[in-house]
Amino acid sequence: MSATTPAATPAPHGERPGRIMSGEMAEQPAVLRRILDEGAPGIRETAERIAARRPRFVLLTARGTSDNAALYAKYLLEIRLGMPCGLTSMSTTTAYGARQDLTDCLVVAVSQSGGSPDLVASTRAAREAGAVTLAVTNNPGSPLAEAAEFHIDILAGPERALPATKTYTAELLSLYLLVEGLRAAGGTDGAGGASGSAAKALPDLAESVLARRDEVRRLAARYRFAERMVITSRGYGYPTAKEAALKLMETSYIPALSYSGADLLHGPLAMVDNVSPVIAIVTDGRGGQALQPVLDRLRDRGADLVVIGPERQVAEASAGFVLPTGDVPEELQPILEILPLQMLAYEVTIARGQDPDAPRALAKVTETR
Amino acid sequence: MSATTPAATPAPHGERPGRIMSGEMAEQPAVLRRILDEGAPGIRETAERIAARRPRFVLLTARGTSDNAALYAKYLLEIRLGMPCGLTSMSTTTAYGARQDLTDCLVVAVSQSGGSPDLVASTRAAREAGAVTLAVTNNPGSPLAEAAEFHIDILAGPERALPATKTYTAELLSLYLLVEGLRAAGGTDGAGGASGSAAKALPDLAESVLARRDEVRRLAARYRFAERMVITSRGYGYPTAKEAALKLMETSYIPALSYSGADLLHGPLAMVDNVSPVIAIVTDGRGGQALQPVLDRLRDRGADLVVIGPERQVAEASAGFVLPTGDVPEELQPILEILPLQMLAYEVTIARGQDPDAPRALAKVTETR
Repeated sequence: MSATTPAATPAPHGERPGRIMSGEMAEQPAVLRRILDEGAPGIRETAERIAARRPRFVLLTARGTSDNAALYAKYLLEIRLGMPCGLTSMSTTTAYGARQDLTDCLVVAVSQSGGSPDLVASTRAAREAGAVTLAVTNNPGSPLAEAAEFHIDILAGPERALPATKTYTAELLSLYLLVEGLRAAGGTDGAGGASGSAAKALPDLAESVLARRDEVRRLAARYRFAERMVITSRGYGYPTAKEAALKLMETSYIPALSYSGADLLHGPLAMVDNVSPVIAIVTDGRGGQALQPVLDRLRDRGADLVVIGPERQVAEASAGFVLPTGDVPEELQPILEILPLQMLAYEVTIARGQDPDAPRALAKVTETR
Repeated sequence: MSATTPAATPAPHGERPGRIMSGEMAEQPAVLRRILDEGAPGIRETAERIAARRPRFVLLTARGTSDNAALYAKYLLEIRLGMPCGLTSMSTTTAYGARQDLTDCLVVAVSQSGGSPDLVASTRAAREAGAVTLAVTNNPGSPLAEAAEFHIDILAGPERALPATKTYTAELLSLYLLVEGLRAAGGTDGAGGASGSAAKALPDLAESVLARRDEVRRLAARYRFAERMVITSRGYGYPTAKEAALKLMETSYIPALSYSGADLLHGPLAMVDNVSPVIAIVTDGRGGQALQPVLDRLRDRGADLVVIGPERQVAEASAGFVLPTGDVPEELQPILEILPLQMLAYEVTIARGQDPDAPRALAKVTETR
């Protein structure tokens, strides 16, 4: 583990800190458009070929930001395809040499760089163990793309900032199109699912969210001096909570703890009081409904509660950011939800006098083994 | 979610705070002995009946402390049985009504109380969807034990303190015996695996660890004023890291962030510096070896590193607690590893003037739905 490529250097004197991350966040609407226009047909074809192999269950493998995208795919696969799923513990293969019978199993490895040796090794092992293997990466020439039988290119273009932003939303949309493609091939999709028609509004909506930087700056002022943060959600919004926590930690170094709303009540709630701000990602749908009792408990405890979600939910919170969720199916909302939280991580970091492009100690490609 | 039973009340004036948690921690050697003497034959028989159904993959369902026990079982199932596994996202069933084809699937629900409605509902749904279902609880008369086809009683006796201690180690040992029983039934065990002979030394070793309260008090003095903590491990020790973080948070309210060593390098490392103490659980085996590069990185960064593990590892750290791991197979070490960390959570909480028996805001049975 841990041979690492050199980290980006802090902005030289005179250049704006965070300019790389800022530029990559702004590219997201264009990347989403590219996936819908250029990537979707290939993803549909890959989904058809995978569906023809009739996998019975799915294992997802990833680390860091991509692991949060994998968790989003797990919700889609379980809810929309009725497919049992697991996230792999990579060390069981790479450290302990576990050999599994993976017949009938689809193994999906998600990685921006496609370069992490442990992902490559575990994907090779899965293929040898009989799995159908799929790599989802931002680099079709990467070792991971080579190691897997199938590959989906997320088409995000080179990512240079250490905190991943555009590759996260690109992974989400690519995985959504994959699952819709599997549904279509299995005959279980609704109207136009596989063509991604429900997703067509996303690039414009993403653009409108990203334009609201002033609102995010006001939220950032609230968190500038926070010593810790709790982020919670349920259902489709839970991967957003985890990714927001990772983004805040790796840029601002604020310890951000993410929990599903249900798990929050099993222990960590004791830690929440009126000095620990809570960010709740409230999806407009069943996940948001299931989160309601948790929001009530937090309000009862006098928590400083910031809601990312639909207008009526934000109105009942201490503060928030209204998402345009009206016509967006719940399963697609995560692609919008993360945007204000990426911006928040960026703005809090700038407000604290640090450079979001070059967090201390981190390398872009983490070579864990 | 969140209808809850009343929380235990703080110790009345004159009674020692934490006396319930302290008493239950001390019961652990006796509970482990009871499982080996009285529980093992029944677990072996249950394992044989489950093995006869030839499950192809396993889904584990739990929350809170039991979720960490389930994660331990996932490592055992993957490494020692070669069985693909997943931890379920319960809301896909309970909030979204996902219906999966679970033929050939073993679903294991782990719960101290066996009373959480979402576990009962998802176990019922799994059984209807064709799964072989097993409940592992501390209450054979519980709704969860009724809902599942098979049941394992962890024989820990009533648990009254809100922070679970003896039921955690009882779940670990019961799940270990289950997996060894599945191996024996499948013809893949080594000598005496199913009889739990490797586990026979655990009760005495647990007793010797629990007797070293003075050493833990010295560690607690180190953390009394910590504003946050990072806990890391790899492989079999990773569930211990998660459970230690939960224990610290729910008793002392210190934000404790747990990461697998590999994930720590993918982002959260930026947050670690010489004011964030790091606890590393270093197993004596392959997980500990895989963690070495992470320990080196942490030392390079000047982190305050406390090691729970074998003597030679503790000698290289800032401080630590030596575990008697010499004759204990790596897969059984988690049952000992958690003991000093339970004691640490207890002692830090006492040192901070709080009552570990009654964390604010928590109920013993959390009725998430």
